[in-house]
Amino acid sequence: MTGQREAPVLAVDIGGTKIMTAIVPADGRVLAKDVSPTLAGEGVPSVVDRLCRAAEKLVKSNNLKFTQLAGIGIACAGAINTGRGMVTVSPNLPGWVDIPLAQMVRERLKVDTFLVNDASAAALGEHRYGAGKGVKHLVLLTLGTGIGGGIIADGRLYLGASGAAGEIGHMTIDVNGPECPGGHTGCLEVLASGTAIVREAVRRLKNGEESSLTEMVGGKAGGITAETVEKAARNGDGLAREVLARAAYYLGVGLANVVNIFNPEMVILGGGMAGMDDLLIDPARRLVAERAFPVSAGAVKIATARLGNEAGVYGAAAFVREAGKGRKP
Amino acid sequence: MTGQREAPVLAVDIGGTKIMTAIVPADGRVLAKDVSPTLAGEGVPSVVDRLCRAAEKLVKSNNLKFTQLAGIGIACAGAINTGRGMVTVSPNLPGWVDIPLAQMVRERLKVDTFLVNDASAAALGEHRYGAGKGVKHLVLLTLGTGIGGGIIADGRLYLGASGAAGEIGHMTIDVNGPECPGGHTGCLEVLASGTAIVREAVRRLKNGEESSLTEMVGGKAGGITAETVEKAARNGDGLAREVLARAAYYLGVGLANVVNIFNPEMVILGGGMAGMDDLLIDPARRLVAERAFPVSAGAVKIATARLGNEAGVYGAAAFVREAGKGRKP
Repeated sequence: MTGQREAPVLAVDIGGTKIMTAIVPADGRVLAKDVSPTLAGEGVPSVVDRLCRAAEKLVKSNNLKFTQLAGIGIACAGAINTGRGMVTVSPNLPGWVDIPLAQMVRERLKVDTFLVNDASAAALGEHRYGAGKGVKHLVLLTLGTGIGGGIIADGRLYLGASGAAGEIGHMTIDVNGPECPGGHTGCLEVLASGTAIVREAVRRLKNGEESSLTEMVGGKAGGITAETVEKAARNGDGLAREVLARAAYYLGVGLANVVNIFNPEMVILGGGMAGMDDLLIDPARRLVAERAFPVSAGAVKIATARLGNEAGVYGAAAFVREAGKGRKP
Repeated sequence: MTGQREAPVLAVDIGGTKIMTAIVPADGRVLAKDVSPTLAGEGVPSVVDRLCRAAEKLVKSNNLKFTQLAGIGIACAGAINTGRGMVTVSPNLPGWVDIPLAQMVRERLKVDTFLVNDASAAALGEHRYGAGKGVKHLVLLTLGTGIGGGIIADGRLYLGASGAAGEIGHMTIDVNGPECPGGHTGCLEVLASGTAIVREAVRRLKNGEESSLTEMVGGKAGGITAETVEKAARNGDGLAREVLARAAYYLGVGLANVVNIFNPEMVILGGGMAGMDDLLIDPARRLVAERAFPVSAGAVKIATARLGNEAGVYGAAAFVREAGKGRKP
């Protein structure tokens, strides 16, 4: 396989709604990409087929052959067994239980395929090419419909015994809080994710509280998203502001835990909600200063991600390349 | 400094009540040790003086000179800045704020001195010589009056940006729980430590509840310790059993977080309370199986420490030796 190290990687990021495929040459930049719908409800074989067809199309349109690739790297939401290339369970992909995804893709496309959790991939991507370049110890959280986590310890992606490490979103911070389908209660994700923000806003509206949100969604509570809540808050809506302040509080509590546990140089916040700097991130930062030990609170920079929604494919490509070099990713 | 690698280390473990000093030759076994009281209330200079005199006595009684040592390693409770050799704050050593302990000892005894958190030292000790030999990823928790934590990632002690990583005892798991002097609320330590067990037992007795504990301590609630509660529980006392079940519950919640975050091969429980297998550890183990993701819950062995109260000096010695070899500990 001489020369394979310099060969491009086909990187894939599978989320609950979209599959992103990308060609990533050795210099790490994304050469070409494509986005298709996940349509998880159609079942595993259908999603895998859609993924492979998107890959075939992208490889062909870039005048490449699969035999020219260094490998395929797949970033996927959920509890991933990296060693076995299996999705053990994935809240955003209903019915995906113990799916040998790496093997399924490898058999179809005849290329070495590696599977890694999407937030771990994002952490690796941001470390190699984004906000965390040159940082020794960092923790990345993706703040979206769920909350994922990835850990860089001593400059390397930390994956744990099975490759499932980093489930910081499922860290219980309020044991008496709402139940999470993950089998526990009051985790960061059920309290501070986009889904949690929507759930809390809807709950309060159903309690008869007044808010401009009602009008914004034409009276249909089902139309509320984290973005609607943000917009309402920016327009001065009291309920929306309180709902975001609540999420920021829980985010701050979770981040203080992360800071006390990891004493990282940097925490990187990515995902759709990381842009709510004044409404979500700043108050969370202040809470870290209050709740974490000064030695660790003083050492950490809480930054936002730079690679946007491409962090996963950047990281998946780096993962393949470093695994391919015989280095532990 | 040829030959220093083979030279013995003087290892020290400073806790809230005792200072242990030990001579640890290159083979890692503890050759000789001594225990003196900490008497933290007498102030920093007095404790440092007592530590140095204990060291001088032990070195002399072993026919050694300080110039023959590879170094001095100090394990100390609290938020430690390992890089600077400073105790930044230590709940068990009142008034120890930003104390440059390594420098103070180095200047007095004229030997290279390294400082590390006591639970991190214990993790390193158990990894090199105890229950965690050969394990790649492990987390150690010391269950005593407080709850300390140490992390081995990829076979190496993980210390974070300043050397303060591993404060798992100060991870908030019930944000609405009791305040911790560390500046946060409802952390594992305030809910599941020996101190927490005593606090809960005393609270219930003061509420007028009946228990054999009252008689055991001659009516003086101040005489209750975690050991008294254990003894009462073993004799079938309902209140004592409930108090321990409560601590086990919180311990299980905290361990599930650790398992989801680190996906470790092993969690090692040390400290005085790790011996309460049936009353504390087994129920906590069952809760991990219920609350953590199966991929990680299935990969972890929750074991008890092997080196007893010597884990700190074993680890402090290994820390000096590995730092002395130019390897990052």
